[in-house]
Amino acid sequence: MYLSKLFIPLLKENPSEAKIKSHQLMLKTGMIKQSSTGIYSWLPIGFKIMKKIEKIVREEQNKIGAQELLMPTIQSAEIWKESGRYDDYGEEMLRIKDRQGKDLLYGPTNEELITEIFRSSVKSYKSLPQILYHIQWKFRDELRPRFGVMRCKEFFMKDAYSFDLDDDKAKESYNKMFFAYLNTFKRLGLTAIPMSADTGPIGGDLSHEFIILADTGESKIYADKRIFDIDINEHQNNQPSINNLRRKYDNFYAVTDDKFKKEDFTSKVNKNNQLTTKGIEVGHIFYFGDKYSKPLKCSVDLKDGKKVYVKMGSYGIGVSRLVGAVIEAKFNNNIMKWPESISPFDVVIIPSLQKKDDLNFEKSKKIYDFLKNSNIDVLFDDTEDHLSAKFKKFDLIGIPYQIIIGSKSGENQFEFKEINGKTDILTIEEIKNKLNKKINSN
Amino acid sequence: MYLSKLFIPLLKENPSEAKIKSHQLMLKTGMIKQSSTGIYSWLPIGFKIMKKIEKIVREEQNKIGAQELLMPTIQSAEIWKESGRYDDYGEEMLRIKDRQGKDLLYGPTNEELITEIFRSSVKSYKSLPQILYHIQWKFRDELRPRFGVMRCKEFFMKDAYSFDLDDDKAKESYNKMFFAYLNTFKRLGLTAIPMSADTGPIGGDLSHEFIILADTGESKIYADKRIFDIDINEHQNNQPSINNLRRKYDNFYAVTDDKFKKEDFTSKVNKNNQLTTKGIEVGHIFYFGDKYSKPLKCSVDLKDGKKVYVKMGSYGIGVSRLVGAVIEAKFNNNIMKWPESISPFDVVIIPSLQKKDDLNFEKSKKIYDFLKNSNIDVLFDDTEDHLSAKFKKFDLIGIPYQIIIGSKSGENQFEFKEINGKTDILTIEEIKNKLNKKINSN
Repeated sequence: MYLSKLFIPLLKENPSEAKIKSHQLMLKTGMIKQSSTGIYSWLPIGFKIMKKIEKIVREEQNKIGAQELLMPTIQSAEIWKESGRYDDYGEEMLRIKDRQGKDLLYGPTNEELITEIFRSSVKSYKSLPQILYHIQWKFRDELRPRFGVMRCKEFFMKDAYSFDLDDDKAKESYNKMFFAYLNTFKRLGLTAIPMSADTGPIGGDLSHEFIILADTGESKIYADKRIFDIDINEHQNNQPSINNLRRKYDNFYAVTDDKFKKEDFTSKVNKNNQLTTKGIEVGHIFYFGDKYSKPLKCSVDLKDGKKVYVKMGSYGIGVSRLVGAVIEAKFNNNIMKWPESISPFDVVIIPSLQKKDDLNFEKSKKIYDFLKNSNIDVLFDDTEDHLSAKFKKFDLIGIPYQIIIGSKSGENQFEFKEINGKTDILTIEEIKNKLNKKINSN
Repeated sequence: MYLSKLFIPLLKENPSEAKIKSHQLMLKTGMIKQSSTGIYSWLPIGFKIMKKIEKIVREEQNKIGAQELLMPTIQSAEIWKESGRYDDYGEEMLRIKDRQGKDLLYGPTNEELITEIFRSSVKSYKSLPQILYHIQWKFRDELRPRFGVMRCKEFFMKDAYSFDLDDDKAKESYNKMFFAYLNTFKRLGLTAIPMSADTGPIGGDLSHEFIILADTGESKIYADKRIFDIDINEHQNNQPSINNLRRKYDNFYAVTDDKFKKEDFTSKVNKNNQLTTKGIEVGHIFYFGDKYSKPLKCSVDLKDGKKVYVKMGSYGIGVSRLVGAVIEAKFNNNIMKWPESISPFDVVIIPSLQKKDDLNFEKSKKIYDFLKNSNIDVLFDDTEDHLSAKFKKFDLIGIPYQIIIGSKSGENQFEFKEINGKTDILTIEEIKNKLNKKINSN
């Protein structure tokens, strides 16, 4: 893509309404545009990053055998009245009346609807266990939306639901999702720690928030810092290995504010290992047994003819929120660097062109065509901005690798650098190989 | 995927509420489930087909240089008041008040919002031409939703918008989209004919509906039947060739009901070439100049400093509707056959297992593992249904190729057939090669 053709409305000034760095960066680099309070349009590079995150989330769900479907955004209020949550949910639920006066709502979550789908589709124990998920837009009518995509009204979320015959089996499903989450965040370049958490309006008695450390985080956390040393690569995608991983995490104290008890922290964690800091929630999982299956009468027949209410859990990841969370984690000293796995482009060519330098343009075009033909997603800054202005711009756009065509580039050798790293002088073949190695390691 | 694990709630009976064959088939094969009037959940195989259609639509948009972004589902009413359409739109627009009493709506289309994004982002003639698109859920509060996904309330749609400096350039963008649409439908296995059409609530003076022939179609059409002989493969993705293609279509009379005039039909079309029939609209494109850019003050600076309102067109494809449309076109004599490009699986293995035939199971599993390792998306019917029941089931599910493990299969040779076609006895290598050829030709 040529930068002059890319729809990327860059802002010169820091947007005054943005209080945290992800919100500032996303507006400044034309990733998003507010369309009304707490509601955003995703412009091409923001959209591209979000879709790459979505793809990784999807792949890790599929790996543990979850099946994807799609529930609608608009739900009937009826089923929420059946579960009892229609009145409980509060004003954050966007309530709607259609032209015939029927009560609808924009789904803030989908426990009711998935239970309804399951109860009318599955009759026998033979079809269990089952994990179903979807990735869909949701809406919460926040009173004070803020922090850009971190706390907005319309947001993109993966939510999964597990169905099992008994508590033990259900906890195995829970552990599978635990495993999928750790792998998902790892592929996004994040270290997310599962912390015991309150269950809130979803309910149930077992819950973990997945938290990444960030000064701007809204969640206060208390942990045994050795929990950061657990290596998920030592674990495979099978139930014993997964259950074992879960036990490792359970060995270390790690809780959010709601669950914090000073006496536990002091007695369970050696002083040297106590970590008190802030973090951002990027995922939340729940086990709630028959909380929904019972009022909604979602049961299956057992072998002996008896009926049992299915045991359910639910598992959320905020996909659009993760775009902001990655920025909060990776944007430091005014330089952004996207993880290779979700970068809007693999590499950018930055030539000095301000004197209409045809030679540099031709050189850049040759490199561009070569890399494109090698299936590398390359951006070419064909504008006439001064080199220093270009560098400033790409410090924010955050493409991890740069090819600079300026005074130091020769006929067949070019400056190649990792953003914020040192410069190498390489041939185009060497650059290609280096990029392929970086891209494929993700 | 093993059929016993797949979340595919098949119905035994024809659903009484479904009047047309696509609606019947989608309910019967567990592709969708109604969640409330005119609103559906997409279950795994329906979802998979819809995503494959979405991918093809996206690829063809990208090929003509359109850029993808994503506008939200919920819009502020303000901008619709600015354009004057808030009052015009009628009760099909789902109007919403948020907790603070602010007027919102669920977007039925996006001319206003995209114009607002464009006007605040683009200032100079240098950035034109530009085509932006998104694929998003939309809502129309239909009084009488019917025919399943063909006329429902919440639907998935690609809408694109072009921005140009003058009418001539704008018509080139229009022609590009014309070309992209013909290629899109061709890849979906459909013959869609562009027909001059009324512009309705979108407005403007140039418009085409893309129509596929089907007895169940809601649109009456009148055409010179020679229009079906135009071969788009003779045209390349460059402006002269595209403009030439557009002229070819313009040579032949082809209109929808609204535009029909008997005297034109009789005078312009030789009696032998007159075709009067029914069809289904699968796409609709519009050119409306400055209809939205003028009231919304979306202008750019020209070279000489003057300002000009941008000339816009809009271009829709109903992605979720296409799932139904393909069924209406391809489901005949009680046999469905999905085009290879969008089939839920590439091939299905159908073994006779009702006598717990371990030998057939092992044979099937070997074939299954082999094909999966060859990157072929294969379904394995591991249930104990009688073979004849399995055939009946797969006549509806519509996977285009079958491997049958029954009496005619040997140790290393198996029955392979195209649904509704004749049977070959082939080795597993031969089957793999045949499938790869079929899949890759799409």
